[in-house]
Amino acid sequence: MTDTFKDLDHPPRLLMGPGPINVHPRVLRAMSVQLLGQFDPEFTGYMNETMALYRQVFQTQNRWTFLVDGTSRAGIEAALVSVLAPGDDVVVVNAGRFGLLLSEIAERCDARVTLVEGEWGKVIDPQAVEDAVARVKPRLVACVHGDTSTTMAQPIEAIGEICRRHDALLYVDATATLAGMPCPVDQWQADIVTAGLQKCLGGPSGSAPITISDRAAEHIAGRKHVERGIATAGAVSGAGRRIASNYFDLAMIMDYWSDKRLNHHTEAASMLYAARECARVALEEGLDARFARHASAGAAVVAGVEAMGLSVYGDPAHKMTNVTGIWIPAGIDGDRVRARMRTEFEIEIGTAFGPLTGKIWRIGAMGVNARKHAVLTTLAALEAVLRWEGFSATPGAGVDAAAKVYS
Amino acid sequence: MTDTFKDLDHPPRLLMGPGPINVHPRVLRAMSVQLLGQFDPEFTGYMNETMALYRQVFQTQNRWTFLVDGTSRAGIEAALVSVLAPGDDVVVVNAGRFGLLLSEIAERCDARVTLVEGEWGKVIDPQAVEDAVARVKPRLVACVHGDTSTTMAQPIEAIGEICRRHDALLYVDATATLAGMPCPVDQWQADIVTAGLQKCLGGPSGSAPITISDRAAEHIAGRKHVERGIATAGAVSGAGRRIASNYFDLAMIMDYWSDKRLNHHTEAASMLYAARECARVALEEGLDARFARHASAGAAVVAGVEAMGLSVYGDPAHKMTNVTGIWIPAGIDGDRVRARMRTEFEIEIGTAFGPLTGKIWRIGAMGVNARKHAVLTTLAALEAVLRWEGFSATPGAGVDAAAKVYS
Repeated sequence: MTDTFKDLDHPPRLLMGPGPINVHPRVLRAMSVQLLGQFDPEFTGYMNETMALYRQVFQTQNRWTFLVDGTSRAGIEAALVSVLAPGDDVVVVNAGRFGLLLSEIAERCDARVTLVEGEWGKVIDPQAVEDAVARVKPRLVACVHGDTSTTMAQPIEAIGEICRRHDALLYVDATATLAGMPCPVDQWQADIVTAGLQKCLGGPSGSAPITISDRAAEHIAGRKHVERGIATAGAVSGAGRRIASNYFDLAMIMDYWSDKRLNHHTEAASMLYAARECARVALEEGLDARFARHASAGAAVVAGVEAMGLSVYGDPAHKMTNVTGIWIPAGIDGDRVRARMRTEFEIEIGTAFGPLTGKIWRIGAMGVNARKHAVLTTLAALEAVLRWEGFSATPGAGVDAAAKVYS
Repeated sequence: MTDTFKDLDHPPRLLMGPGPINVHPRVLRAMSVQLLGQFDPEFTGYMNETMALYRQVFQTQNRWTFLVDGTSRAGIEAALVSVLAPGDDVVVVNAGRFGLLLSEIAERCDARVTLVEGEWGKVIDPQAVEDAVARVKPRLVACVHGDTSTTMAQPIEAIGEICRRHDALLYVDATATLAGMPCPVDQWQADIVTAGLQKCLGGPSGSAPITISDRAAEHIAGRKHVERGIATAGAVSGAGRRIASNYFDLAMIMDYWSDKRLNHHTEAASMLYAARECARVALEEGLDARFARHASAGAAVVAGVEAMGLSVYGDPAHKMTNVTGIWIPAGIDGDRVRARMRTEFEIEIGTAFGPLTGKIWRIGAMGVNARKHAVLTTLAALEAVLRWEGFSATPGAGVDAAAKVYS
């Protein structure tokens, strides 16, 4: 018989990659709270509070603002599969790994995908989106806000305006930016926006906040197909094509989060506690203060690595505040540097995907780690490891430049 | 501005419904442990340990034994959508709400569903399954082990034998029984078995353990379709029809849990900590001791309610040990009784679904609650509430009869 292994007992590690990052202590404590039954009034009260909290986090009036029980990718798939029926046209705005993911998921919905593609490290010109939308007349436009694979933040507002003008729905993946950079859902005129907890919200992966406009909700409700096992509860199926997934059927999940409380899944209560606490922490700090804190930390990372003689990846005009791409200098083994950051300093920085593999590192400063001490510590460690690996920077220059951003 | 509400602060409640139930304190503590990066060697070590632990819990040698990031329903959908392509035949064994759920999900896969249906409260005769399998020659047979909606446990071994003989794959939903009743996956000859944490494993909902036989894994791998965003990593797509879901694409999830560590989702680390600890707690107790503890608790509930003059629902020969259905006596308002159990004793017992709505209560005794004190407390409270509601039992008879089971 295999043994049952040991208690969780790993070193405390400073997670300065593109996410997941360290979880806020209050969120860790919330997850250790005992459960309630999922229809107990106290628990449905927590569900309603979670809806109200995420309306504020998403800066929206949308009634339908709740959680999908899965990672941020689950939120993306729930949005796309609930909107897109086979044969529906979708325009996907793609300039990074997560734009590609949107098109992959849309293809699996058997939607007809039109890609508006751009170079990694830049954002897409809204005119290109407008051209595609005018030509294709899609049901949906899908776009990533902050794509951690490229560190770029796509301006959404112009795309929202285009979608309204052409009567297309707009989906935005705000996984990497929500509660770290402004995501004003209503001002964007976005119809569905999803996120995860493991980036700027400072929680663990495993719960996907989502918000849905009334017009998107109406479309989705038209595709409702109530399970026979619970059909006695008076729910009515819609006229549209049944949604291809049961688990991600947002029409049923909305019934579950509504006063009807129609049973769907068994809510992941501990993750709901986590999501609720993430939002409370963010709102108690205040969104504007939080955005400013992420912006300062990002600026300090940039100032620090540039002072060390390193170059920042991508278009600085559209760089996400919370993640910074750094070109790996010639002659330096990027993976060795990352490994030594981990083994000698207990600090994690990120690698890269696809065309950027082996070319850039990614340093995140978000959630509880978007703070001076975390940035300075990371820069000091990076300087030492680079020196040991043969790349010399002026000693102390990175830390000094970053500290100056804060002074 | 809406306020940010209060800290989680609800009364401790004894959850004696059909699940979720109270979480084991060690599992609550595990969830409050700080994160690691998802590719940190300590974290991939935890992933490997989790695989080894669940092989023991599932009583299997299956290499592919891991977690799906979602509730137990996510595990079901991952299994069905990864096996079933449109037009595939599936035989669904159905005698309860969760059998219906299997057929609903299979229909959304555009599979051709043949139902072998039976009366709620009984199990299905294997001969009926054999007849359907011989006629339809399905790719897959899908069956619930313990269906909490009816409290019946379907014998699986005969169905496994039928499936091997007819070269069909067998999927079993063991959400409500794993680690509470024997689920010997290899002895069953089941190809895919899924579960959740929120029943006999004594954890929160939100992670779905799954195990997959080599022959099922081979079929699924033939449908692999690697995301373009990570395609540089050398993964090869299969010849079969692409799986309709990205999030539930078990071929990609197996690559993620393999030594290749191909990035798919961001693992829900806190839920992995919970799942790992649930398995450790179960295996340290020992599966046989655990099954016996659940059997005693179930027997005590039955003895107790019968001594109170109540009748147990369903076929006693096939009753799940961990959930008991109880006919609501004539003239008693079942919902009022449940409400008073909650408000006056902080005890939750379960309601029922579909044809049993308003007709039975369901009392669960599982995980950390499959213990004498929980059973006795519940019976004492039920007796009092029933007396206040006008149903009189011999005072103390229920508690005494249950205590006798333990003596």
